Amino acid sequence: MSISVAVSGASGYAGGEVLRLLAHHPDVTIGAITAHSNAGQRLGSLQPHLHALADRILVDTTAENLAGHDVVFLALPHGASAAIAAELSDDTVVIDAGADHRLESPEAWEKFYGGEHAGHWPYGLPEMPGHREKLRGATRIAVPGCYPTSAQLALVPGFTAGLLEARDVVIVSASGTSGAGKSMKPHLLGSEVIGGMSPYGVGGLHRHTPEMEQGFSAAAGEPVNVSFTPTLAPMARGILATATARVKPGVDAAALREAWAQAYADEPFVHLLPEGQWPTTKAVQGSNHAQLQLAFDEHAGRVIVVCAIDNLTKGTAGGAVQSMNLSLGLPETRGLDLEGIAP
Amino acid sequence: MSISVAVSGASGYAGGEVLRLLAHHPDVTIGAITAHSNAGQRLGSLQPHLHALADRILVDTTAENLAGHDVVFLALPHGASAAIAAELSDDTVVIDAGADHRLESPEAWEKFYGGEHAGHWPYGLPEMPGHREKLRGATRIAVPGCYPTSAQLALVPGFTAGLLEARDVVIVSASGTSGAGKSMKPHLLGSEVIGGMSPYGVGGLHRHTPEMEQGFSAAAGEPVNVSFTPTLAPMARGILATATARVKPGVDAAALREAWAQAYADEPFVHLLPEGQWPTTKAVQGSNHAQLQLAFDEHAGRVIVVCAIDNLTKGTAGGAVQSMNLSLGLPETRGLDLEGIAP
Amino acid sequence: MSISVAVSGASGYAGGEVLRLLAHHPDVTIGAITAHSNAGQRLGSLQPHLHALADRILVDTTAENLAGHDVVFLALPHGASAAIAAELSDDTVVIDAGADHRLESPEAWEKFYGGEHAGHWPYGLPEMPGHREKLRGATRIAVPGCYPTSAQLALVPGFTAGLLEARDVVIVSASGTSGAGKSMKPHLLGSEVIGGMSPYGVGGLHRHTPEMEQGFSAAAGEPVNVSFTPTLAPMARGILATATARVKPGVDAAALREAWAQAYADEPFVHLLPEGQWPTTKAVQGSNHAQLQLAFDEHAGRVIVVCAIDNLTKGTAGGAVQSMNLSLGLPETRGLDLEGIAP
Amino acid sequence: MSISVAVSGASGYAGGEVLRLLAHHPDVTIGAITAHSNAGQRLGSLQPHLHALADRILVDTTAENLAGHDVVFLALPHGASAAIAAELSDDTVVIDAGADHRLESPEAWEKFYGGEHAGHWPYGLPEMPGHREKLRGATRIAVPGCYPTSAQLALVPGFTAGLLEARDVVIVSASGTSGAGKSMKPHLLGSEVIGGMSPYGVGGLHRHTPEMEQGFSAAAGEPVNVSFTPTLAPMARGILATATARVKPGVDAAALREAWAQAYADEPFVHLLPEGQWPTTKAVQGSNHAQLQLAFDEHAGRVIVVCAIDNLTKGTAGGAVQSMNLSLGLPETRGLDLEGIAP
Repeated sequence: MSISVAVSGASGYAGGEVLRLLAHHPDVTIGAITAHSNAGQRLGSLQPHLHALADRILVDTTAENLAGHDVVFLALPHGASAAIAAELSDDTVVIDAGADHRLESPEAWEKFYGGEHAGHWPYGLPEMPGHREKLRGATRIAVPGCYPTSAQLALVPGFTAGLLEARDVVIVSASGTSGAGKSMKPHLLGSEVIGGMSPYGVGGLHRHTPEMEQGFSAAAGEPVNVSFTPTLAPMARGILATATARVKPGVDAAALREAWAQAYADEPFVHLLPEGQWPTTKAVQGSNHAQLQLAFDEHAGRVIVVCAIDNLTKGTAGGAVQSMNLSLGLPETRGLDLEGIAP
Repeated sequence: MSISVAVSGASGYAGGEVLRLLAHHPDVTIGAITAHSNAGQRLGSLQPHLHALADRILVDTTAENLAGHDVVFLALPHGASAAIAAELSDDTVVIDAGADHRLESPEAWEKFYGGEHAGHWPYGLPEMPGHREKLRGATRIAVPGCYPTSAQLALVPGFTAGLLEARDVVIVSASGTSGAGKSMKPHLLGSEVIGGMSPYGVGGLHRHTPEMEQGFSAAAGEPVNVSFTPTLAPMARGILATATARVKPGVDAAALREAWAQAYADEPFVHLLPEGQWPTTKAVQGSNHAQLQLAFDEHAGRVIVVCAIDNLTKGTAGGAVQSMNLSLGLPETRGLDLEGIAP
Repeated sequence: MSISVAVSGASGYAGGEVLRLLAHHPDVTIGAITAHSNAGQRLGSLQPHLHALADRILVDTTAENLAGHDVVFLALPHGASAAIAAELSDDTVVIDAGADHRLESPEAWEKFYGGEHAGHWPYGLPEMPGHREKLRGATRIAVPGCYPTSAQLALVPGFTAGLLEARDVVIVSASGTSGAGKSMKPHLLGSEVIGGMSPYGVGGLHRHTPEMEQGFSAAAGEPVNVSFTPTLAPMARGILATATARVKPGVDAAALREAWAQAYADEPFVHLLPEGQWPTTKAVQGSNHAQLQLAFDEHAGRVIVVCAIDNLTKGTAGGAVQSMNLSLGLPETRGLDLEGIAP
Repeated sequence: MSISVAVSGASGYAGGEVLRLLAHHPDVTIGAITAHSNAGQRLGSLQPHLHALADRILVDTTAENLAGHDVVFLALPHGASAAIAAELSDDTVVIDAGADHRLESPEAWEKFYGGEHAGHWPYGLPEMPGHREKLRGATRIAVPGCYPTSAQLALVPGFTAGLLEARDVVIVSASGTSGAGKSMKPHLLGSEVIGGMSPYGVGGLHRHTPEMEQGFSAAAGEPVNVSFTPTLAPMARGILATATARVKPGVDAAALREAWAQAYADEPFVHLLPEGQWPTTKAVQGSNHAQLQLAFDEHAGRVIVVCAIDNLTKGTAGGAVQSMNLSLGLPETRGLDLEGIAP
């Protein structure tokens, strides 16, 4: 029996990636495909890589068009999903790729996003302690941000195991340009992006910072404080997160390695690489996999963990499908058995 | 019942792509994975994107290691496949991704490759007239070159329909660097490639030229003469072929469009785009799809056909798997239902 | 005595490149720097690479602001330069980087640009026969288009020497994205451009086609017919033009080489490379140099000439400064002695 | 009176960049151009962007060939420069782009490079307190590493002003591939580099770490401890250094800004950007400029300073020429008045 799925925001990068994955999900039938200003257009003219769905026509993003499906993916601007979700049946699995329902703290929401907090939903990062259970059967799911996905995969095992200090966490991430969406901003033009790197949101301003702290603090059992700097790299996809934290006194390299190895031993998508091999975003391009490696710098007293994901797949649409699978009781890897595209 | 497949040349780009596709082919079990100088190594250290096969150990490329499988993929240097194939059972399906068995003409072989001609095998481009039939049940298959795949997809419909003149065909193609393989040559370094374009093999020297002429001549029923210039583009994957030919007197735009539309109406992987939309290599990245568009330049008396493929997928490994499917009587699209990765 | 220069369109790529070159021209003082919607802004926020001029404030593009300088560079939308030029003194050297005054034929103008033809000015490609003389002392100069610059450098020597046939010229060019300017179009986003190639203006539609034919026809002494296809490459700068033409009967490789060698023997910026070495756009990046190489494909009866330039330097701003030098009686290479940036 | 200069290592990226800058230095005559395995070749075939020097023939890198010039640039493998320098006259200005004479501590040398310490020479980063004076008239100069150049420009003002804590400095840098030189390593192939990012030397292993600590410690007056992680970005040139340090209690944003503003107020090549504008490596490409910006993250108690340089120019050859100018009593910016190449 096939699951009927509607996808909103289908002309954007996140929506396109959801469709790319669902097109090959063996248990899914794609129903309404919706957009805002592009309603009425052929999908093939907006997402020319989706050959299987090229002749589908986009309809308007309304609760009416989205209703009547088993699952609805929302890829909408911040603040728009709560209203739509309220009009959808409680039985419908609503998966929100936007930020509206990620943060538990109303204060953090107000500080970083502004406006009223919409409340929080089960958080779609199954690899974090306790999350997988909450996603099973959930009908409202918040998809994590792409930077927080990679950051939490990188450091949570150390916090859970009590090996890391809660202060002085520093994360510097490089992201491909698709993370910024299809917005028509001059600094996102190919001519500007190709051949150069630049930072943005420096100084604790990026909205993904409180989301990282939320995850770290839950794992550590105490408030964790993060300095996060995102940079824009000359590539279309991928996040390389370099995450470092002070190691508690007496912790050695073996204990660190053991904590990460145990945390991900049974995870199908998260790979602690053999010692000496470092992650590369190319190896996970287009896939739901995450690659990790760590090193203990005794001199600096820090562990450095590097995590590579595809921001659109594991960082957005792949994570969303993984959570959908959990919600519906399907095998977690269903439809996600794609390898990275390399070279 | 699963088909047992061996893959040689597994540390290279072509071999890696064959493995990426086979890892998700529902009817295939991957047996021996072989290499030459990298025998003994873990596949994950050489092809870190192939998570499903990461712990497999490469064995030496010998007939002994390859024997005993239903299908053997050869991705070896020119001149090496005939000897290996001779040692494999006639029942084994041998699919040669190298050039040894592509050319029908011993003279062309000698002129462009040198040495003794190994003879020719059924040519794995099922979309060309008459080829699909020959591939059904074939146990020896020559995989076309990547440039000839895109060039023939671009122009053969016009030759078959008798609309194009046999002289003055001009093809200029841009290829991603993976087309040059993993060879350690200074001009293939990232520092050299990024941010620039350059031609090579100019003046009719490229070995894929006689292969194109062979395909065009067969379709036209007369010898076709091609000027082919390949260029190296700053991207890892993809071929954009710009192919132009003189149009015979009296032929108009509608007749041209009709010829291409009919030729590919039922093809699952070849897409003549709606008028006004032009191919982009991004849209077929990592997929077995080919995108085509044409325009009639009345002023110049030429049709210009642009074809985009992924050189490693439709141009090599995807075409090889498609031919394997035909050989074995499987649905032609089996294991190849991947969309392009974009953006 | 310093020459006073005003530059319009200073927030765009062409205007920025003019300023980059003029900032180091030893005989020039930069006066008004003008823009349209960006008037009032600091140049450093729009062109952050121009450190020497970072604190200059852009003023509105009006004849009043541009008047009173010895030289005025116009980098304006099509159709805008004639009106401005009419308001500037006849003694002022006006150098138009736009298309308005390139075409001699009113019919070609109307067909490709539409609207009334503004007339034609001396054409700023000094390497073409007879042009250098016309540029000396000229007070109105039309800067050639970037594609026509590379195409004419590639083929004119053969037409001048009477070695090439006038029909069946085929040119396929790859351009960096800066050729499309800073326009906010979705297909120019970094996410779309990186990792892919696509054609545009196929079928004789590109506005640079008649400009190429004008140059070739003048050299050949008969109407030359061109099939031109531009493609967009994943790089910020550079044009690689692959230009091919049928060779007249009896012409051999030595005669071809000799024609090009003679044509450029004394040119400071155009380099016919030693045999066997092919142009790369990286080698001319940021410089006013052009690299050329040719090969005679006897089998196809064609000469293939490849020319690499930087579309913004030799293809626009460098050519403009070179013409300014000629107009003012300065050494032609003044301020242009920059090497390419590689790797 | 022209200064005679010899350049060794001319077939590599550092040597090529030294030649690119010297070719336009008004006071310099380029004498011997030397290489090791490429001796006897035409420079134009190895560095095709250096049109002005294309016909020069490389000679062997021997003290004999280098002797007799006013200045000698050494761009040799680690451990090779001391022996050559010993054979050159004490009056000759020897500028070593290698690492041999950068570190003051024999222990650090032995730990990170191994073998005997060659001693240390005046350190060619004139913007650091006290360095400019030591470079005036110096005849032996050690050119800083590219990562340490950007790191020290980023953080030294804060250490000098006593605003930063000496522990928990974290630096994550992204470098273009030219930083790795022309070495023929598989991971440096264009196919591997394009479209992806990866780290290397993680965990305090990179040889530039002690060099950074040396500079920071000198400025702070106490030992500073650095966690440094380099990453390889898909671009040919450029370093983006994200450097963060804990701020001492009571220090506020204004004090931080003031320290950096004062430190670089009179520097011709180091630019603290206006508030709100962040550095991009494109803006300094091919130039000797460095761009800086900082933000105080009160929540994390850290200052984040981002510095963009071109690794080959300010990071190597430009810094070397700047030091040469100081040594010879020339204006410090002589021959270095090049703007960045953007877009």
